[in-house]
Amino acid sequence: MSATDCHNIKTVDVLSLDSIRSSLIRQEETIIFALIERAQFRQNEIVYRKGGFGNLGTPVGSTSVEDHDLSFMEYMLVGTEALHCGVRRYTSPEEHAFFPERLPYGQMDALPLLEYPQELLSSVGGACDLNFNKALLQNYVEKIVPSVSKQGDDEQHGSTVLCDIAALQALSRRIHYGKFVAESKYRSDPSGYQQLVDANDADGVMKLLTNRVVEEKVIRRAKLKAATYGTEPLLSEMPPIKGADTTSIVAAAAAVYRDIVIPLTKVIEVAYLFRRCGREPPPEYQLC
Amino acid sequence: MSATDCHNIKTVDVLSLDSIRSSLIRQEETIIFALIERAQFRQNEIVYRKGGFGNLGTPVGSTSVEDHDLSFMEYMLVGTEALHCGVRRYTSPEEHAFFPERLPYGQMDALPLLEYPQELLSSVGGACDLNFNKALLQNYVEKIVPSVSKQGDDEQHGSTVLCDIAALQALSRRIHYGKFVAESKYRSDPSGYQQLVDANDADGVMKLLTNRVVEEKVIRRAKLKAATYGTEPLLSEMPPIKGADTTSIVAAAAAVYRDIVIPLTKVIEVAYLFRRCGREPPPEYQLC
Repeated sequence: MSATDCHNIKTVDVLSLDSIRSSLIRQEETIIFALIERAQFRQNEIVYRKGGFGNLGTPVGSTSVEDHDLSFMEYMLVGTEALHCGVRRYTSPEEHAFFPERLPYGQMDALPLLEYPQELLSSVGGACDLNFNKALLQNYVEKIVPSVSKQGDDEQHGSTVLCDIAALQALSRRIHYGKFVAESKYRSDPSGYQQLVDANDADGVMKLLTNRVVEEKVIRRAKLKAATYGTEPLLSEMPPIKGADTTSIVAAAAAVYRDIVIPLTKVIEVAYLFRRCGREPPPEYQLC
Repeated sequence: MSATDCHNIKTVDVLSLDSIRSSLIRQEETIIFALIERAQFRQNEIVYRKGGFGNLGTPVGSTSVEDHDLSFMEYMLVGTEALHCGVRRYTSPEEHAFFPERLPYGQMDALPLLEYPQELLSSVGGACDLNFNKALLQNYVEKIVPSVSKQGDDEQHGSTVLCDIAALQALSRRIHYGKFVAESKYRSDPSGYQQLVDANDADGVMKLLTNRVVEEKVIRRAKLKAATYGTEPLLSEMPPIKGADTTSIVAAAAAVYRDIVIPLTKVIEVAYLFRRCGREPPPEYQLC
């Protein structure tokens, strides 16, 4: 390997099964930083209310869809996705749009297409089309925001939705990594999963892929990271960190992982494994 | 004050001089989180090269400007600014665009205009027009990226520029807070600053506003925060944090504050104080 080569990393390596675990752990930083950033601001409930600022129209660059009112947060999310779509964000198997029906595809032919490991992804009967962002978005607005931010309104509506978009995109990447995790589990026991899927036994698939010890470790790590990153390091002159008292950020991070990230990831894993084994998952695993 | 009132905060209070210090300290988290996020990825030098991906055209929603090639990072920054401009980001005195000449102003009449404390801002002869983002952008690409990220290319170009945009916007807000800081210093000694400005003594203004003890404190805090947030909390099963070894993040955070944030903030303070006292600053304080 030449000196230049060792500075460069190919996408096809980044998605190797070996790197999934380290990616999942690194994504915890991104998610917890994003939650701490969101905690600076009040709940600002108006940004999530459809029509909260009247009819905002069609976000720049997106495709107009009738009969669907957008909240201010959704409006900015669609606009952000349209911008990112223009440079092919959603051709990456790690990325899933919240509003795919509103995106203009195929604009940016100047950028090279990256080479992804196809055997893991699109070749497996529709598994790459699984998209659970609708469920994530609902959980985010109804549960995560109230757990992270204080009640009330501080007029910082633009800053608030930019934090929301960063958090949502990080959470979306994390839960959809369930597809890679599921592929790795499938490879360790292909006949076990095939039998359960052939018997249409979703509960059995869920049981086989569940590892309580690992789940507890993930939750413990989320709490520890939130405690570390959500507390200003002790310096005599330092006032308490604005908006984020440590206790509430730690509780919120644990709840986000325990009640939302882990369960949604597992639903995605079950849905993926059904399609991987050639069968449609039961309706409760088709949230997308 | 009613129960509802105490949950709500007005912008006009957020910008009180009392809150400037706590805002500056809180912005340190945002900046250091952003640098740690950027450190995940290689330098990916191609994203900063004009024409690195050929001619990308005019970003969606922005105003076309001839004779100016954009790098991929600049292309995405302009697109992001056009989106944010559409919901009035740049009517806030805390926010400054990197490419104001490319922005379409006055679209989003649905959103209410916020009430800012005018005495601090636009009424003071052109002080609110000071924009030092060109110098910041150059420093970011030439100094900050190489200090934070490892050499080479990992093909994560989209993720890289999103981290860049978050870091640039946070750094821009921080250095332009120099205007608020300068206003506060002016109020503590109006005749002192007026005399120096009347004598066109920029060095004298710089000397009067400099407080080495506070600067050293800021650098020390940046290092401590980078050490705390850039190190995974110790858990036996935890591998080293991806891409960010603590030593290099701590050194980079200290250098960012010592060599870029603090000096640029002080240049902005001098420029602001000249305009505040009714005189144009010398050319070296007119980077915008």
